[in-house]
Amino acid sequence: MVKRIRDIGVEIGALKTGKLNKITDVEGVQVGHYTVKHGDLNTGVTAVLPHEGNLFTEKVMGATYVINGFGKTVGTVQIDELGTIETPILLTNTLNVGACSEAIVEYTLNQNPEIGRTTGTVNPVVGECNDMVLNDIREMAVTKENAKETIHEADVNFKEGAVGAGTGMKCFGLKGGIGSSSRIIEYPHGHYTIGVLVLSNFGQLENFHLNGKHIGPQIQSKLGHLKSESDKGSIMVIVATDLPVTERQLKRVIKRSSVGIARTGSFYGNGSGDLVIGFSTANKIPHDRQNELQSFKAIHEEDIDQAFQAVADATEEAILNSMVAAKTMTGRSGNTLYSLSEFLSFE
Amino acid sequence: MVKRIRDIGVEIGALKTGKLNKITDVEGVQVGHYTVKHGDLNTGVTAVLPHEGNLFTEKVMGATYVINGFGKTVGTVQIDELGTIETPILLTNTLNVGACSEAIVEYTLNQNPEIGRTTGTVNPVVGECNDMVLNDIREMAVTKENAKETIHEADVNFKEGAVGAGTGMKCFGLKGGIGSSSRIIEYPHGHYTIGVLVLSNFGQLENFHLNGKHIGPQIQSKLGHLKSESDKGSIMVIVATDLPVTERQLKRVIKRSSVGIARTGSFYGNGSGDLVIGFSTANKIPHDRQNELQSFKAIHEEDIDQAFQAVADATEEAILNSMVAAKTMTGRSGNTLYSLSEFLSFE
Amino acid sequence: MVKRIRDIGVEIGALKTGKLNKITDVEGVQVGHYTVKHGDLNTGVTAVLPHEGNLFTEKVMGATYVINGFGKTVGTVQIDELGTIETPILLTNTLNVGACSEAIVEYTLNQNPEIGRTTGTVNPVVGECNDMVLNDIREMAVTKENAKETIHEADVNFKEGAVGAGTGMKCFGLKGGIGSSSRIIEYPHGHYTIGVLVLSNFGQLENFHLNGKHIGPQIQSKLGHLKSESDKGSIMVIVATDLPVTERQLKRVIKRSSVGIARTGSFYGNGSGDLVIGFSTANKIPHDRQNELQSFKAIHEEDIDQAFQAVADATEEAILNSMVAAKTMTGRSGNTLYSLSEFLSFE
Amino acid sequence: MVKRIRDIGVEIGALKTGKLNKITDVEGVQVGHYTVKHGDLNTGVTAVLPHEGNLFTEKVMGATYVINGFGKTVGTVQIDELGTIETPILLTNTLNVGACSEAIVEYTLNQNPEIGRTTGTVNPVVGECNDMVLNDIREMAVTKENAKETIHEADVNFKEGAVGAGTGMKCFGLKGGIGSSSRIIEYPHGHYTIGVLVLSNFGQLENFHLNGKHIGPQIQSKLGHLKSESDKGSIMVIVATDLPVTERQLKRVIKRSSVGIARTGSFYGNGSGDLVIGFSTANKIPHDRQNELQSFKAIHEEDIDQAFQAVADATEEAILNSMVAAKTMTGRSGNTLYSLSEFLSFE
Repeated sequence: MVKRIRDIGVEIGALKTGKLNKITDVEGVQVGHYTVKHGDLNTGVTAVLPHEGNLFTEKVMGATYVINGFGKTVGTVQIDELGTIETPILLTNTLNVGACSEAIVEYTLNQNPEIGRTTGTVNPVVGECNDMVLNDIREMAVTKENAKETIHEADVNFKEGAVGAGTGMKCFGLKGGIGSSSRIIEYPHGHYTIGVLVLSNFGQLENFHLNGKHIGPQIQSKLGHLKSESDKGSIMVIVATDLPVTERQLKRVIKRSSVGIARTGSFYGNGSGDLVIGFSTANKIPHDRQNELQSFKAIHEEDIDQAFQAVADATEEAILNSMVAAKTMTGRSGNTLYSLSEFLSFE
Repeated sequence: MVKRIRDIGVEIGALKTGKLNKITDVEGVQVGHYTVKHGDLNTGVTAVLPHEGNLFTEKVMGATYVINGFGKTVGTVQIDELGTIETPILLTNTLNVGACSEAIVEYTLNQNPEIGRTTGTVNPVVGECNDMVLNDIREMAVTKENAKETIHEADVNFKEGAVGAGTGMKCFGLKGGIGSSSRIIEYPHGHYTIGVLVLSNFGQLENFHLNGKHIGPQIQSKLGHLKSESDKGSIMVIVATDLPVTERQLKRVIKRSSVGIARTGSFYGNGSGDLVIGFSTANKIPHDRQNELQSFKAIHEEDIDQAFQAVADATEEAILNSMVAAKTMTGRSGNTLYSLSEFLSFE
Repeated sequence: MVKRIRDIGVEIGALKTGKLNKITDVEGVQVGHYTVKHGDLNTGVTAVLPHEGNLFTEKVMGATYVINGFGKTVGTVQIDELGTIETPILLTNTLNVGACSEAIVEYTLNQNPEIGRTTGTVNPVVGECNDMVLNDIREMAVTKENAKETIHEADVNFKEGAVGAGTGMKCFGLKGGIGSSSRIIEYPHGHYTIGVLVLSNFGQLENFHLNGKHIGPQIQSKLGHLKSESDKGSIMVIVATDLPVTERQLKRVIKRSSVGIARTGSFYGNGSGDLVIGFSTANKIPHDRQNELQSFKAIHEEDIDQAFQAVADATEEAILNSMVAAKTMTGRSGNTLYSLSEFLSFE
Repeated sequence: MVKRIRDIGVEIGALKTGKLNKITDVEGVQVGHYTVKHGDLNTGVTAVLPHEGNLFTEKVMGATYVINGFGKTVGTVQIDELGTIETPILLTNTLNVGACSEAIVEYTLNQNPEIGRTTGTVNPVVGECNDMVLNDIREMAVTKENAKETIHEADVNFKEGAVGAGTGMKCFGLKGGIGSSSRIIEYPHGHYTIGVLVLSNFGQLENFHLNGKHIGPQIQSKLGHLKSESDKGSIMVIVATDLPVTERQLKRVIKRSSVGIARTGSFYGNGSGDLVIGFSTANKIPHDRQNELQSFKAIHEEDIDQAFQAVADATEEAILNSMVAAKTMTGRSGNTLYSLSEFLSFE
């Protein structure tokens, strides 16, 4: 059975988790994976769908935050300007961003025959990390078809660890990958969910902290000569919520992912492309202009601290989940990355 | 009688103006001036009040845009983070920003005894230009008391030209100062007003364009040996509206002031602190948290082009009004700046 | 013979142009085109190469500026963070950004066998405009091979108008496309060149200004029932220079493209993705770390106004050149766009 | 004797400290304090001088980074645009920013008679936190004269804790104030120093971590009914270095202060104005234009990780030093804040 960090009793923060303790606890959100695994090819795609309908005609409010921009994420310029996300979000290896970008375009064209005829174009959103340690990234093994299939595979239930885009990733010198977590925040005006999914591929083992404990050096000494390669990292964080916020508030909220990342021992290294993409499903934005004003709901600014806390905690836990779930794996040129779970005591 | 650029038949753009063709056409907005004029001291303060009530307890949505940040404007960090303006906006000379800042603090403390006791502090907003050509700016002639009086003088009717903060300003080598203009924009869901007030103190005469006509060089040749000093400029633009927008939309809207400025012949010179502060009165934000969600109205993004056009046009016209209204003036060390109106044919 | 705006005596600004009055006046810069033109397909790719060597191992200092981010440009996040450009810059139609991105990756992998082995990945830079009026953009007609060929076609001499990425573009309701211009700026410490290349696809005819003259409405009345479709625009601006600057200075310099665009009659409409990418070849940055500090040269900040003026003027002229060079053309579904040159008097 | 966190054996990170383990380990940097302490007034000013000469005529390279912009810091707009700091940096309570701003202006006018005559104006830099728990902030007790005196008091040796601007501050529900730390980073091309000074006034006790240990809740239970007031925080961080960097690199470096802050248990709360101001003394920038290009030195980007680590570690340690050095204190209305040192075992 796939393990999670709570299985060894680690709980990050005091807030309650959602039912699955995953990003899909946010109503309507779905996640899909496509995994490439043969020979030196260990890579894939992960899709996050903000809702189940037509995202182009019914957009979600979106925001991005660049923690460290050594990265090739696509789609941020328009999200920043217009405050909307209008496609599935795909994650993949660095050199397959183009293929995934084309896949989203074709998927959206197919759904919306008016694009390029009576309305404009579409803004694909693709994030990436570099999985070159375990994957022969030069082969650009992900195809447009793989990427499209990922979108169609999306579901509320999804795996963590070395799966989809997480297949070949490395985190704190150990095996990284996909991880997720969620939190419930409560106000007099209602209960809301904040969900986080990470693609973890960052950090140096000597800096690794597990819930405040600096256990990286111990693991390092156990690994001895098996010590893994040096760091060329990145982390992609996707934050989903049904909390009613303005775009400005959403950006403030997702920025707190950087707190969760720092807690695990990162200082946002130069070579690490650390980027957050977030959306709120509370206020949908129609593609077509209407003859009336739009109505929005949003929290008062003083309500926002709970959301900050939730994002920081869920990001930290999602990173730990990605590391615990990913099993030890040998990939390109015989490179091996060990699972964090081998160094922890599960019952 | 004070002249305006429409008095010689110049109309910028096709949109209708508001009743006064001033920023105070936006319901609730008021403007006040305090003018210092004795000897080498030619300076002052101008206040823009977003509404007549208590701005601290009932904030307006705010945004700032830096065209060229060679400037000492105060308050932008918090406006950018929180999306609100909670005080009157004061404009003054560069070296009196501190005094005006203190004046706003005292004014707000006086109105709100809970500040520093049961609630936090206040974010004063002060913009500035350097009036050193006509004013002995080293004297820091504006006092805290002057600044507070400016706020109390605010009214719907106010003067343009060499008045208040505009007293000593220079624009395109001629006399600059305070100018204003407004536009009405119409949608199926209602009519709204966009108003602009500028403190003009930028530009080189040889580049001056009046409604597309490059008349700077002609004026330059008429001035001959009377030619004024070289450029150390700036322009402050205040944009007010009752259009329902999100903070992101508001920032997009006020950014179009840069178009109006470019049309007059500026390339946003290195030494020019060109900065825009804007607010919308459509959605007020209460200081105190409530137990419910806030409701907002906002236009659909495709409605925004009219607001862009309105801001560009009103900014251009406000600059021209500032120059036409300001009469020829001699100030510090006998420096003289000529009025644009001397080179135009009014009936 | 292909016309340019200087052929009818229009000169923008007082600065001298370079030898070709094109972006390739900047030493080492090359431009290539690949044009797709059959049936309803009217599109292509344009490549700008910052220098002739290996851009990955010897990067140029780079910067981006978003005028209006309704666009899908790729590569800006990393340019902003690291201040370098390490690939050719490709321009194409909106939906072929993915193919061009993949082409740059393959081109760079081929040149640099160490990528994905002993060093990290590469950041492809691709800009775009939407050519759906004349091109069946849904066909995504540009292939990876086309894009790679474009890079290999690059030369100091290149065509303007309806060529390469400019093939299907529309500008101010008339035919747009590729245009270029350059300026020489002189200091006591040397002479430098600033070159601009635009992909013009923005603006509404009624707002068009030619060197200050508001001639859009006249052209509109001549066009009568032949009047073209409404606006879904964008403009991509590439600024090249050999001026020694810091990354901060470079960003300030390229931002002045927005002045040139405003002068032609744009207010940076909502639907227009207006984006500038710039580079300086003066200070090259090696990919590999060395054991010593790097040495840079840069102008004093007060030298920067000439560069501002040069970029504003060259951008304005490049837009006009793109419109004059592009001939009247009929494309997808029989849509016709007229050339500006038909409304001007050339000898 | 005043304590520091190393006195109880806590060492943050593996890098060596400078000689004093303070910001003044960076050659030329000086710090001064002015403390107001009578009755309900417990506040003051702290000055950081980047070098001992005339800062206006010989500027230092500067950068700012806003972690959370609920703050009233002055001077950031121009630092961001021009990349220079040209005055002492003052820290004070929120409502005395105006007075400190005026003091810097007067100080600089006095030093530079050409300001406002033959050259432009000056950009004062003032940061702040809200000390309302222990200080009657409504009294605006700091005068212009106090602030000027602070500048003149500046020295290499300076106190930490409840002194200067730190007098009335609160951190993690305990007594906060001024703290400092430094690190040495070594390259083949030389050794450099990074120094940090904080004005700590942020955080909730339940979240406090001391070098990874979550000891906040234990302290909370010991405090019992003596528990302090709820949070209205902020932290100002000043980063000084002699590392040769570009402005872009400097901004990246100082951003890592946010890592140090997160490690102590903060999630950058809504009400906390968390802001970093940094400078490098390696490349001085003359006020007056010269007839030649300027020469700069800068590290290769891959050298930057050590600087990131140094800033993260020194910020964390500076915060702890501020809390250990500040003794238990009773202020306005009998409010008492306990010293962290009372809960630690010093020999």
